[in-house]
Amino acid sequence: PSPQSSNSLSATVLLILCMTSSANGGNILVWYTEASHWINMKPVLETLIDRGHQVTVLTPSVSLFMKTNEPSRFRYEPFNVSFSLETIEAFMEEFLQFSIYEMNQMSYLQIYIRFMDMMKTNVQVSLKYLDGVMKSDTTMKKLKEGNYDLLLADPIYPGSDLTAEILGIPLIFSLRFSIANNWERLCGQLPAPPSFVPAAMSKLTDKMNFSERVWNFVFYILQDIVLDNVFWKELDKYYSEVKGTPTSACEMMSTADIWLMRTYWDFDFPRPFLPNFKFVGGIHCRPAKPLPEDMEEFVQSSGNDGIVVFTLGSMVKNITTERANMIASALAQIPQKVLWRYRGEKPKTLGANTRISDWIPQNDLLGHPKTRAFITHGGTNGIYEAIYHGVPMVGIPMFADQPENLSHMKSKGAAVIVDFNSMKTEDLRDAVNTVINEKSSKIDNENAMRLSSMHRDRPMSARDEAVFWIEFTMRNKGAKHLRVQAHELTWYQYHSLDVLGFVITVVLLLILLSIKTCKYCFRMCCNRKRKTKAE
Amino acid sequence: PSPQSSNSLSATVLLILCMTSSANGGNILVWYTEASHWINMKPVLETLIDRGHQVTVLTPSVSLFMKTNEPSRFRYEPFNVSFSLETIEAFMEEFLQFSIYEMNQMSYLQIYIRFMDMMKTNVQVSLKYLDGVMKSDTTMKKLKEGNYDLLLADPIYPGSDLTAEILGIPLIFSLRFSIANNWERLCGQLPAPPSFVPAAMSKLTDKMNFSERVWNFVFYILQDIVLDNVFWKELDKYYSEVKGTPTSACEMMSTADIWLMRTYWDFDFPRPFLPNFKFVGGIHCRPAKPLPEDMEEFVQSSGNDGIVVFTLGSMVKNITTERANMIASALAQIPQKVLWRYRGEKPKTLGANTRISDWIPQNDLLGHPKTRAFITHGGTNGIYEAIYHGVPMVGIPMFADQPENLSHMKSKGAAVIVDFNSMKTEDLRDAVNTVINEKSSKIDNENAMRLSSMHRDRPMSARDEAVFWIEFTMRNKGAKHLRVQAHELTWYQYHSLDVLGFVITVVLLLILLSIKTCKYCFRMCCNRKRKTKAE
Repeated sequence: PSPQSSNSLSATVLLILCMTSSANGGNILVWYTEASHWINMKPVLETLIDRGHQVTVLTPSVSLFMKTNEPSRFRYEPFNVSFSLETIEAFMEEFLQFSIYEMNQMSYLQIYIRFMDMMKTNVQVSLKYLDGVMKSDTTMKKLKEGNYDLLLADPIYPGSDLTAEILGIPLIFSLRFSIANNWERLCGQLPAPPSFVPAAMSKLTDKMNFSERVWNFVFYILQDIVLDNVFWKELDKYYSEVKGTPTSACEMMSTADIWLMRTYWDFDFPRPFLPNFKFVGGIHCRPAKPLPEDMEEFVQSSGNDGIVVFTLGSMVKNITTERANMIASALAQIPQKVLWRYRGEKPKTLGANTRISDWIPQNDLLGHPKTRAFITHGGTNGIYEAIYHGVPMVGIPMFADQPENLSHMKSKGAAVIVDFNSMKTEDLRDAVNTVINEKSSKIDNENAMRLSSMHRDRPMSARDEAVFWIEFTMRNKGAKHLRVQAHELTWYQYHSLDVLGFVITVVLLLILLSIKTCKYCFRMCCNRKRKTKAE
Repeated sequence: PSPQSSNSLSATVLLILCMTSSANGGNILVWYTEASHWINMKPVLETLIDRGHQVTVLTPSVSLFMKTNEPSRFRYEPFNVSFSLETIEAFMEEFLQFSIYEMNQMSYLQIYIRFMDMMKTNVQVSLKYLDGVMKSDTTMKKLKEGNYDLLLADPIYPGSDLTAEILGIPLIFSLRFSIANNWERLCGQLPAPPSFVPAAMSKLTDKMNFSERVWNFVFYILQDIVLDNVFWKELDKYYSEVKGTPTSACEMMSTADIWLMRTYWDFDFPRPFLPNFKFVGGIHCRPAKPLPEDMEEFVQSSGNDGIVVFTLGSMVKNITTERANMIASALAQIPQKVLWRYRGEKPKTLGANTRISDWIPQNDLLGHPKTRAFITHGGTNGIYEAIYHGVPMVGIPMFADQPENLSHMKSKGAAVIVDFNSMKTEDLRDAVNTVINEKSSKIDNENAMRLSSMHRDRPMSARDEAVFWIEFTMRNKGAKHLRVQAHELTWYQYHSLDVLGFVITVVLLLILLSIKTCKYCFRMCCNRKRKTKAE
């Protein structure tokens, strides 16, 4: 059996998807989002435009990544928010400082308190964004007059479900995950037995020993309690106010027709799911384009040793001079040439093999045949590009889902993780050498190739699948036949606790009845015997 | 958004699948099966041959439907079984007589006892078939020398998992369902919360009230107990004997790489599933071909009223004269022309509008634009052809899964059910008129069209998807990355009962400890107060 036929198949499907753009395309509204979420969304929107749909993006006046003045094929629907860009930048900076540096010197309790604080601020900021839409008559009027066929949203910013309901249009979510999959489980009804489905952010894998299973179980419960208090309570209040009637925000979230989950079994662990959950991890991946001439020259000069690609992502702009020097001197000790996306001052210890630049064509470099390893902070987008191109990783997790993402790659034998704050020159150097050269059960660059093959060997590419379900939902004005009845049940009905209670009661009553009957018979019997004896 | 682009897409995918047949095709072994299971399997095997694979079918010397002397493109691997065709025919006849006629006059207990009896016989027959493979050195030697890449099996006949293990090749199941989904749940680890997933054969839907949920819950348990006793116990014994070590047949079944489930959300209710469960209902469906000339003439003569297609399936060959007359006189009263597949004597009451024949091109008739309704026994294959072509149904369930299948169609508003034994002329006549003319929430021929659209509007046709995963499994020598870790857990681990026990114990201990501490503190406090008072 040859893999070529399947590859040529997907290539042709892609081609057809591009060619069959329909004349009467849909009218798609896209919910505002931020950072890597927006970076990830764009290729899908581009494909939708290629297929003849009109794409309108709700864009807040204040955003780190969404810029209405950039040349693009999207229509923008701008709305005002009542705070400045500096507020957002300051909050982001605080979050990064906390995650990367401060957290290491704090106790668990301190981390927890600080984290809760930041989550509360985050919810407040999110609701202020939502104010910009909900409480602006102009914006709501424009949205209503837009005659949209569908709302596409990353639910990381709440309110899209409420808006879809007000506009009376279907809703599709694109989501990496929520903490402990709280949203997917409680609102999406995604089943997640804690015995083999590790909670998102727990850093566990699907192979858990007893104590890990206990931790996973407790983690789910704790996160549900936390989110109930800092997230859902606030949202319920807001939603109820807007609708003028007591409203559960989670129930509103449950109205989503399709959940496009930005993961797949190459990245995540196989798990139970539902017909309206589609796993489209690597939605943004694409073949490498040729490099700029001077860069190609540099890459070719690496000879057989090849190159290492290094970036800490779009959010981390600065690291301390000390860390930069340490990293530079580690890189100077490896035989590969290194392309490092770095924006700070040139480190003193920078080796001749290392080239730093403000920006690198990450995907084109990862897809280059000379690439041997990827040093990454572990963002989902970057990891998926590495999976797509089959490049093993050295992970330096910085914040948010990055430690979790990298622990997945590590458990699949495609990454080694080093700690940003405590790592020494030799740690980073050895890690790079390990992922390139070692062939053990724990790490092997063939594992990265295997993940790449898993990723590509599927009936349809992730982007095509996402586009299919978006168009499907527009065509059918929803996707109700993929929706499980679990949505209509209470939690105790879902788990059959009422049924179990009833069945146990009946069984106990039957046992009691039979005991009573036996006793009665026994007594009658004895009485008769006694009587017989007495006679 | 236009549906055309998607339709043209699937058509082209089909075309490509046909064109990209690879030169170095795989070598596929197909497990023996019977009746509609074999009818269903053939189109997939044909497609696999079109794509350049070699297909070898294990064929018992005794079979109702598998004939090695029929001209076909399959290679046959015949093996001997130690009983006659008459034995099988007699058993089949007994089963049909029981299901269609006798069951109606029996009490639940009688039905249960008789059914258990037949199930036991069925298992014994199955194991005798298996003897023909396992205990024949010639057959086993031939299979080992066959160098197969994959074993494709409908698990209705046990032993394919054992054979796949002995041959060291991957295994793919094609399955409609097992009773109460016992195999899928217990061996395949398919999650099935009894609160919204109706057990197969329970005739329940996904919308259940309290008493239905109780019944569903109890049904799952009862069937598990029954199958444990009449099925698994026998299989465990047989498997253990062959392997020479205590073996769980269910664990052997769990080694299947992919489960191709012959259902989809058009026919079944949406439910949780796993990455290695692929829903390929309608795997055999295809566009209608032109009818024979005289039949086309008859069909066209129906004018605007159109035609009704009527068959009771490939298994039921005779019905009583009384029933035949009743049916014929009902059909005589409808304005449509009727094509009835009927093998008995010509009923006296046959109307001029009804044409009977030994055989009808069922799929081509169902796909004819003049077709208004389908009178069917409710076999899966026929129902899927009706779904594919969007034809509403009058169901006359006869045996096995037919009542279950038709109850699904009824709940989706695409069928009316009548009882074969008790129906009167007017019942059948009214049922046909209802499915053709009524437009209510319960039944509407537009519902059939909606099911058809659901069925066709998917990323890939069922057959293409099945073929993809068969080829995938050959390419990758299995599909291990789609396999959940649940397979490695015991039932109490799976349900986290050990974890729950531990957590509850810890919580209780903590409560006890704090009560003790409080009491101690309180006592100390009181003592001090008393002392103070005393002083």
